[in-house]
Amino acid sequence: MGGNTYGRFFKITTWGESHGKALGVVIDGCPPGVIISEEEINKELSLRKPKIDELSTSRKEEDSCNILSGAFEGKTLGTPISIMVNNRDVDSSSYEKIKDVFRPGHADYTYFKKYGLYDHRGGGRASGRETVARVAAGAVARKVLKNEIKGFELFSFTKEIGGIGISKIDHNSLKREKIVSDRLWCPDKKISEQMAQQILKAKYQGESVGGIVEIVAKNVPIGLGEPVFDKLEADLGKGLLSIGAVKGVEFGGGFNLSKLFGSESNDQMNSNGFVTNRTGGIVGGISNGEDIVIRVAVKPIPSISKEQKTIDNKGNERSIKIEGRHDPCAIPRINPVCEAMVAITILDHLLMQKSIGGIR
Amino acid sequence: MGGNTYGRFFKITTWGESHGKALGVVIDGCPPGVIISEEEINKELSLRKPKIDELSTSRKEEDSCNILSGAFEGKTLGTPISIMVNNRDVDSSSYEKIKDVFRPGHADYTYFKKYGLYDHRGGGRASGRETVARVAAGAVARKVLKNEIKGFELFSFTKEIGGIGISKIDHNSLKREKIVSDRLWCPDKKISEQMAQQILKAKYQGESVGGIVEIVAKNVPIGLGEPVFDKLEADLGKGLLSIGAVKGVEFGGGFNLSKLFGSESNDQMNSNGFVTNRTGGIVGGISNGEDIVIRVAVKPIPSISKEQKTIDNKGNERSIKIEGRHDPCAIPRINPVCEAMVAITILDHLLMQKSIGGIR
Amino acid sequence: MGGNTYGRFFKITTWGESHGKALGVVIDGCPPGVIISEEEINKELSLRKPKIDELSTSRKEEDSCNILSGAFEGKTLGTPISIMVNNRDVDSSSYEKIKDVFRPGHADYTYFKKYGLYDHRGGGRASGRETVARVAAGAVARKVLKNEIKGFELFSFTKEIGGIGISKIDHNSLKREKIVSDRLWCPDKKISEQMAQQILKAKYQGESVGGIVEIVAKNVPIGLGEPVFDKLEADLGKGLLSIGAVKGVEFGGGFNLSKLFGSESNDQMNSNGFVTNRTGGIVGGISNGEDIVIRVAVKPIPSISKEQKTIDNKGNERSIKIEGRHDPCAIPRINPVCEAMVAITILDHLLMQKSIGGIR
Amino acid sequence: MGGNTYGRFFKITTWGESHGKALGVVIDGCPPGVIISEEEINKELSLRKPKIDELSTSRKEEDSCNILSGAFEGKTLGTPISIMVNNRDVDSSSYEKIKDVFRPGHADYTYFKKYGLYDHRGGGRASGRETVARVAAGAVARKVLKNEIKGFELFSFTKEIGGIGISKIDHNSLKREKIVSDRLWCPDKKISEQMAQQILKAKYQGESVGGIVEIVAKNVPIGLGEPVFDKLEADLGKGLLSIGAVKGVEFGGGFNLSKLFGSESNDQMNSNGFVTNRTGGIVGGISNGEDIVIRVAVKPIPSISKEQKTIDNKGNERSIKIEGRHDPCAIPRINPVCEAMVAITILDHLLMQKSIGGIR
Repeated sequence: MGGNTYGRFFKITTWGESHGKALGVVIDGCPPGVIISEEEINKELSLRKPKIDELSTSRKEEDSCNILSGAFEGKTLGTPISIMVNNRDVDSSSYEKIKDVFRPGHADYTYFKKYGLYDHRGGGRASGRETVARVAAGAVARKVLKNEIKGFELFSFTKEIGGIGISKIDHNSLKREKIVSDRLWCPDKKISEQMAQQILKAKYQGESVGGIVEIVAKNVPIGLGEPVFDKLEADLGKGLLSIGAVKGVEFGGGFNLSKLFGSESNDQMNSNGFVTNRTGGIVGGISNGEDIVIRVAVKPIPSISKEQKTIDNKGNERSIKIEGRHDPCAIPRINPVCEAMVAITILDHLLMQKSIGGIR
Repeated sequence: MGGNTYGRFFKITTWGESHGKALGVVIDGCPPGVIISEEEINKELSLRKPKIDELSTSRKEEDSCNILSGAFEGKTLGTPISIMVNNRDVDSSSYEKIKDVFRPGHADYTYFKKYGLYDHRGGGRASGRETVARVAAGAVARKVLKNEIKGFELFSFTKEIGGIGISKIDHNSLKREKIVSDRLWCPDKKISEQMAQQILKAKYQGESVGGIVEIVAKNVPIGLGEPVFDKLEADLGKGLLSIGAVKGVEFGGGFNLSKLFGSESNDQMNSNGFVTNRTGGIVGGISNGEDIVIRVAVKPIPSISKEQKTIDNKGNERSIKIEGRHDPCAIPRINPVCEAMVAITILDHLLMQKSIGGIR
Repeated sequence: MGGNTYGRFFKITTWGESHGKALGVVIDGCPPGVIISEEEINKELSLRKPKIDELSTSRKEEDSCNILSGAFEGKTLGTPISIMVNNRDVDSSSYEKIKDVFRPGHADYTYFKKYGLYDHRGGGRASGRETVARVAAGAVARKVLKNEIKGFELFSFTKEIGGIGISKIDHNSLKREKIVSDRLWCPDKKISEQMAQQILKAKYQGESVGGIVEIVAKNVPIGLGEPVFDKLEADLGKGLLSIGAVKGVEFGGGFNLSKLFGSESNDQMNSNGFVTNRTGGIVGGISNGEDIVIRVAVKPIPSISKEQKTIDNKGNERSIKIEGRHDPCAIPRINPVCEAMVAITILDHLLMQKSIGGIR
Repeated sequence: MGGNTYGRFFKITTWGESHGKALGVVIDGCPPGVIISEEEINKELSLRKPKIDELSTSRKEEDSCNILSGAFEGKTLGTPISIMVNNRDVDSSSYEKIKDVFRPGHADYTYFKKYGLYDHRGGGRASGRETVARVAAGAVARKVLKNEIKGFELFSFTKEIGGIGISKIDHNSLKREKIVSDRLWCPDKKISEQMAQQILKAKYQGESVGGIVEIVAKNVPIGLGEPVFDKLEADLGKGLLSIGAVKGVEFGGGFNLSKLFGSESNDQMNSNGFVTNRTGGIVGGISNGEDIVIRVAVKPIPSISKEQKTIDNKGNERSIKIEGRHDPCAIPRINPVCEAMVAITILDHLLMQKSIGGIR
């Protein structure tokens, strides 16, 4: 079983440990005849690459992919697309001295208990580096979606970092190119600056921070989602909760809807369509044509240089200060990963819907 | 494809429309030799049955199941278990006059767009009544879990209704039998009374309310969850988001973790185990032996008697007041459904883990 | 896991023991808007019903189905279709005295070893009666295929019984209505009579016989089949080998191709298409538009009244003569089951192909 | 969907075109802690490598694998194992001039019709070269099986080539090391020589031949196989029929059983176990502890230098003589591929059975 495959129609299988030789993804079920290139994928990969500035890690992840199969003369063949990214600039030495100690907030303990052994170097399979493969697959999914859906847009932005956030924003004013030009993917420059200060404050204290990412998909066709279990929310939720640092997900009004009256929560309609979009574009598990709006809670990076108590794999009490290169905040590097999971999920459902009834 | 199957090892397939002849579930993959009875399942079904009081619907859902296969002389055979519940007290007349009108907040519009036709009577397949089948399957899953896991406990309670809630509670003080004896499944009597007032207030205004349900699983073995995509959170999240009214889900500290520093979010360890449980019992997608703690946001019931604007299936503008029998709040009837999805998901992962390494 | 689900798009889950209350199937993924009726399904069920004559069992299986969900006003809804058939005329008494003895050639021993217990009555889940559910699902699949594919035909005929068979036949001369009018589904009346004599000879000796069934599907669209593992042959082979009595399957020239030269095995083409059809309509795992031709080997019914040596569930040596009502030959009752599996498999692949590229 | 994944527990996904950069497999669900090495896998790969003699192709496929992930310090981690083999000695020039012509017996036509385009070089994805990935995965499966099952043996031998074969053989006299030392994997030296003459005869006529491979697995635990659809025969059959050249498969007595009486087909038992093994080790879809015995029909290699009629992708009639390097017979290079599919399928079912009841 294993758990390393996602999607049923546009099906991705990822592989690779953080400090292994390489990592990658095999995409099965991509429609044939789609133009793809390593350049396009690399462009997406560069978005999750750490920026070399005070807010980021110093590991140089200049990731460059290699399409090993599934494309011929620049077009997809309908056969599996194997994409590989080599691991470069891997320095495992800082992990050597803590290799038998369970880092708090990391998966060392649970991997050790589940599998009986684990690759301690850089978090092994549990590392955020695994998401390189997701972003590569997401780049292909995004390309297919742009071909299949007129006016399709998918972007995410940073809504909150370390408790500092933007309260309200008009999604129609947002463009992905604009958002990603901000170093924190925050569409409000002033708040972006405050967020940066918050990250720096954490960094200087040997701490880390988390935040909230909002993802928006526009012009998704009506009718995607398979009740009752493969509802669009259920599958999007699964995809996003499969990202390491995500501890919560909500759609449209989300948790806030639980505090309202029915008339404040329902979206009424008139002959122009829906008057409001409190539900986040999904009703009864099926897309209704409105913007799909999702927010995810990202916990703080667990690697901090502050001293923490833990145990080692013999059960001895130990204390640990995590050294090495670590971001003080997973945002905005996690943003393209969220987008990738949403792109893959929407495409998966689009292909599913084509099989039973076509896209209306 | 269809989307009516959940789980991979303990695999359930549900079927049935709200006002059809019957509804049911086929469970495939249940271990053999487990003692089950219709009585035990009916006991769980009675927990999602509307209580006949001022807070509830007046439809009498005295559901009684029929085990049609998969058990012999009181024990499971390892073959598929087919459980059927007949639909009784079905009165479709109140739906007749609004059969071509899309009820706001309901799935009428999206079903119509996706499938080209739908059973308008009582919400058809999109009705909350579909969850009867989930609860029946959950009763079997719960039984297997009790056999397999020493000290296993699984309960849920109402944390908030219409914005009124309990802020903090010690999970160790809670027992399922005690919780379910409260008519709102709220472990704090005083707050339960305030919640009831809030529901009544809504009801008298022709409104409805939502709330937050918290689910707790105790003594779940360490090691359940299959990184990277079938993380325990991802699968639990999918299961819970597949319930109609759920619009958000969070684990442990959830959205609040996103506002903290790393040292406030990490769970440190000593020789007695974890010192805190901010992560909600799951790290790196794998259970760590601590209580699994999940909260879901339940939106208000969309059926309200207040007048709302909508359109019909010809595109004409209409206004609608929903009559008939409707709960003003999905809580606590949704609570056993949440528990069922959690039980099925945990059992699914337990069987998965047995296949590769046994339970440590 | 369990193994009671077949298909991925048009997905069927069957349930039920031979002498249980009922048996049935849930179909998930059937396209919406298809006209179906219990009458049409019953008509197919009647084809696998034992004929009341000297060649057959005397159990009266007047099977009549009940569509419990998934259809409204005579049309499929796109939601799961639950079809149930009650078990009538069940007499378990003849099984009582051999309930702890493993019947040679039956699954008693392997079920006991696998599950630790089994329903001994009438073979339980391992009974051929389970195929009622397959035929019901096949009737729906056949209906959808007729809607989707112009000129689609699917039939099977008895090629050999007890070593007596027809050597060559022109598939274009065959029509299903004609074939099924023969009591042994043999298109050659003279050979049908010889086959009947062979069956009677076996019956009078307390024996049983097997044979070979040939299945033909005409006008299957080009392009069905998903290399490399879900080749059309691989999936058809799986479907047919999942029928209890089937011990071999071959496509087109089959085993005989292995004795020929390449030039005798390849199908050459000209501007009118393929000149020959030695490959049985599938090349590289993908349908090529020619007739799909499959043959399956059906072993003799294991229930014979001749004395046989065996052991009981304590390991004691026993001898057994199987009494009760048993056909001396599974053919032609198995023929509609073979057709059902082929119909379901082809429809599954048709829907799959629609998802990636439409039907050319 | 795509069809490039096989297995559910020990799940393999293969990728790669014949003349692409590389090909490989990702194995998901391999138990942790298994010792594996590139050397062991290469040893298996060398068995499917063409021997450089008169009976074989002259393409030098000195395949050497690279384990890119899933193993650490020589042991499997429980994470996905990515194995890559680079394509060397690739000369696509001989394909250039026939790139728009459909080679008879090859998948060019069906790939073109299904996908709208294909990689014509060396058969692309439809090439037998794809099976390198299967053999690599099979080597890992074989290793796990040897760890898990005492006395496990799995071998295949050439039963027939071009109509010349061995009629009867005692499986207990066979050892894999001995079989593979024969250049045609035929355990009877004299017949091996006759087979070689048959191959040469074909080769000199510009022809090719096929044959029959028999696969035997010994000491498979009782209880593997999931009725009713995932019967062990059904899954083994699917696995073997997914190999390009295989056009038929049979178990135990197979097609010959269809000609016998029930008493000649049933396996009786005494206190020592089964007296015969006509069923090939599987009853009711579940292994019974006897040798699993399977035969597959391998069609002649379609590439022949004899002139054949065909059409090109514009529909024009063409004639073609296939040049380049081609084996005149797929046997014995296909034998390790058959073994690999059997190993993977048995391991898959072993892990499945562990999840519900352990191995008895």
